[in-house]
Amino acid sequence: MSKQQIGVVGMAVMGKNLALNIESRGYSVSIFNRTGSKTEAVIAENPDKNLVPTYTMEEFVESLEKPRRILLMVQAGKGTDATIQGLLPHLDAGDVLIDGGNTFFQDTIRRSEELAESGVNFIGTGVSGGEEGALLGPAIMPGGQKEAYDLVAPILEKIAAVAEDGEPCVTYIGPNGAGHYVKMVHNGIEYGDMQLIAESYDLLRKVVGLSVDEVAEVFAEWNKGELDSFLIEITANALTKKDPETGKPMVDIILDRAGNKGTGKWTSQSALDLGVPLPLITESVFARYISALKEERVAASKILPAPASYSFDGDKAELVEKIRQALYFSKIMSYAQGFAQMRTASEEYDWNLQYGEIAKIFRAGCIIRARFLQKITDAYAKEPNLKNLMLDGYFMDITKNYQDAVRDVIGIAVKAGVPIPTFSSAIAYYDSYRTADLPANIIQAQRDYFGAHTYERTDKAGTFHFDWYGNEGQEEL
Amino acid sequence: MSKQQIGVVGMAVMGKNLALNIESRGYSVSIFNRTGSKTEAVIAENPDKNLVPTYTMEEFVESLEKPRRILLMVQAGKGTDATIQGLLPHLDAGDVLIDGGNTFFQDTIRRSEELAESGVNFIGTGVSGGEEGALLGPAIMPGGQKEAYDLVAPILEKIAAVAEDGEPCVTYIGPNGAGHYVKMVHNGIEYGDMQLIAESYDLLRKVVGLSVDEVAEVFAEWNKGELDSFLIEITANALTKKDPETGKPMVDIILDRAGNKGTGKWTSQSALDLGVPLPLITESVFARYISALKEERVAASKILPAPASYSFDGDKAELVEKIRQALYFSKIMSYAQGFAQMRTASEEYDWNLQYGEIAKIFRAGCIIRARFLQKITDAYAKEPNLKNLMLDGYFMDITKNYQDAVRDVIGIAVKAGVPIPTFSSAIAYYDSYRTADLPANIIQAQRDYFGAHTYERTDKAGTFHFDWYGNEGQEEL
Repeated sequence: MSKQQIGVVGMAVMGKNLALNIESRGYSVSIFNRTGSKTEAVIAENPDKNLVPTYTMEEFVESLEKPRRILLMVQAGKGTDATIQGLLPHLDAGDVLIDGGNTFFQDTIRRSEELAESGVNFIGTGVSGGEEGALLGPAIMPGGQKEAYDLVAPILEKIAAVAEDGEPCVTYIGPNGAGHYVKMVHNGIEYGDMQLIAESYDLLRKVVGLSVDEVAEVFAEWNKGELDSFLIEITANALTKKDPETGKPMVDIILDRAGNKGTGKWTSQSALDLGVPLPLITESVFARYISALKEERVAASKILPAPASYSFDGDKAELVEKIRQALYFSKIMSYAQGFAQMRTASEEYDWNLQYGEIAKIFRAGCIIRARFLQKITDAYAKEPNLKNLMLDGYFMDITKNYQDAVRDVIGIAVKAGVPIPTFSSAIAYYDSYRTADLPANIIQAQRDYFGAHTYERTDKAGTFHFDWYGNEGQEEL
Repeated sequence: MSKQQIGVVGMAVMGKNLALNIESRGYSVSIFNRTGSKTEAVIAENPDKNLVPTYTMEEFVESLEKPRRILLMVQAGKGTDATIQGLLPHLDAGDVLIDGGNTFFQDTIRRSEELAESGVNFIGTGVSGGEEGALLGPAIMPGGQKEAYDLVAPILEKIAAVAEDGEPCVTYIGPNGAGHYVKMVHNGIEYGDMQLIAESYDLLRKVVGLSVDEVAEVFAEWNKGELDSFLIEITANALTKKDPETGKPMVDIILDRAGNKGTGKWTSQSALDLGVPLPLITESVFARYISALKEERVAASKILPAPASYSFDGDKAELVEKIRQALYFSKIMSYAQGFAQMRTASEEYDWNLQYGEIAKIFRAGCIIRARFLQKITDAYAKEPNLKNLMLDGYFMDITKNYQDAVRDVIGIAVKAGVPIPTFSSAIAYYDSYRTADLPANIIQAQRDYFGAHTYERTDKAGTFHFDWYGNEGQEEL
């Protein structure tokens, strides 16, 4: 029996769609699922495809060309470990395992080390684009051994989304956990983008006073300009949908309790570990948590006082434009933070990340795909060691021209009592980053006062302690 | 030879000061340090004290009355594990080990489980108050077996700080990691308090235009009222200190780069894990991280544009009062978040935390000691199941009366370009929590759109998916 070119383990929707995507590019694909009936179902649904069902791990492995290329699309965590342990006895040195799940990057680093002993190559890859993207073309972020990547690159390049300029949305990200890390930050950025859109929507409804239909038009309009992106586009579309049961706009029927699958949380926790400021994405994670307290909020809304009633009496079209500018400004702050986080992670884990290439593969297929990612690619092309996106000329011009609008919008929202955690976090980041002298001297004074944690001086190098309680003055340590 | 009543391992400053504190209350204390010379030095410095030096772990353990009470003041992490492993062969079931280090609560939970097999009791205790507090009376937050706590309670009650009403600042917190968890949240709250003070200072200098001496007077004045607290007091004092070398105010000499020892980060990471919104403390952690980017900030300050020049032309005394109100309002938001985090942790880890008792022991000895903690104790006395501090009558009155001031101060700061990440995070939390309908419906619509993550409805129970791409409408799942 002839051998297949690649195998896919896990026939849940993502695994099934990726297998179909690969098959559609002319590859023969072995498929395997822990529960055989799922494998049977996939074959039954797709009788004419070049898919070969297998029902034991041994049979699955045996069905593949060497060096074997095996894509794991199983439950992240224990599911992945169990699958790897099950496959391992049947594999040979030089085979390539590819974990395409939403895996925590530290797990990928650990598995990479564990598998190194056996000589089996391991690639941890982010796959973004949801079910639709898996089938038609996702953005793919693979990390692992470069030589292993080269063995699977031809396939990945064929199944990936294609950007406007014809380039596939896949590139080698870096060793071990680099791919899953970049996917994690992608998701964190996605949380930020979604919260920024939600706050914009809220202001358009509650302050500008637009109807759902009018907001849909505003977003559709915004999508023609520099905010052009998948998330703005689907928001505009979603706002036009009506509930078949009540005839009301769907968004008025959907409960305001946002779930999450943990990747935003991981992004924030990693930033906290790395010492990187990531306030905007973190505020967006917390905003989802507050949204989940629906019962508490409803109860509190009846007793906690609102501010004095506010009614906007300026030019509405002008305010809409200011909100658009605030959204774009804040989005830039969010990406600046996310890319700064990747830079620090790259140094910490020795990944040598290529930020311009990363922005490039985000241009299509993935959830945060957007026209402005090209600007990020351009910025890193001009200056590969850019310390912060804000320092690039294009982004600096935007911040210069839009900052007044952000400040106005925040002033209005705070007065009106409309919560804007990420808008205000964006301006705080901007103002902190461009401030030479922050009041952190007060914090160091306090820390040295109560805990002898020492301080540095503005006028010379060294570490000092001051005798705050007594009269001994300063001591150099 | 007669046996000693308690032993202390680790003669760095915290261990030494706690040993001296215990001895000063009439107890005999064995001391041990991995490096014997430190033990010798402590004895040499304190020749007349009832301290007994020991130089091997066996000798140390043998020198103690049974059941033995041993306080570990060693480096958190591997140091603690190594010390426990070294002591364990010499201990008997019923002995009590007390870890007084700044230990991560999950480590305490793990050690508690590991030691359970041997029958040795384990208490993980938070100790707050710095070096000075350790010597004269810290706030103490012990977690572990209740019966083990009872064996050490008489000593802890004698060495703890004493509140105004004569009560010692120690109480049984709960099983295993509860004590270290509460200490961790205490430290997170401390980060928030310090950042709020720093932002207030910044506004008083840069917007109101006060000199350092004038700000010192403002803080001294504030310390007489509802903001009365250790941190406000030491800030006022610190602002009066002059640099002996230059004659300038010390705070103008101290570099604005704030360090941290990780407990604030842990607090945020735990909140992220528990699904609890903790934006204010987290913004304060990120503010320290941004402060650490001193070189980047100085470079950015030369090229990133400031807002149009702003000069406050209102009543300065009135603005100072508004800043005071903004500080108190924001402090309440921070504590509301921290106590909500403890409530969720208590449910998650089955600790049965007593929030009123916790606020009570924070009243003296520790870094966040403050008059207003009595109000928290009172609130939980009235309503032990209070879901959020804001819902208590006292705090609701404050928020009602002070919210206009916060909104004004934020508007001014954002216009002036002075970064106020925690002030603006405070109002965003308040406005989110009191809002029945947040725009999280947009986020759920997006999630269901691109990932089929489902949504709930406002008008009936159930989980639904909408066919956003096609015409199938809504499907109940």
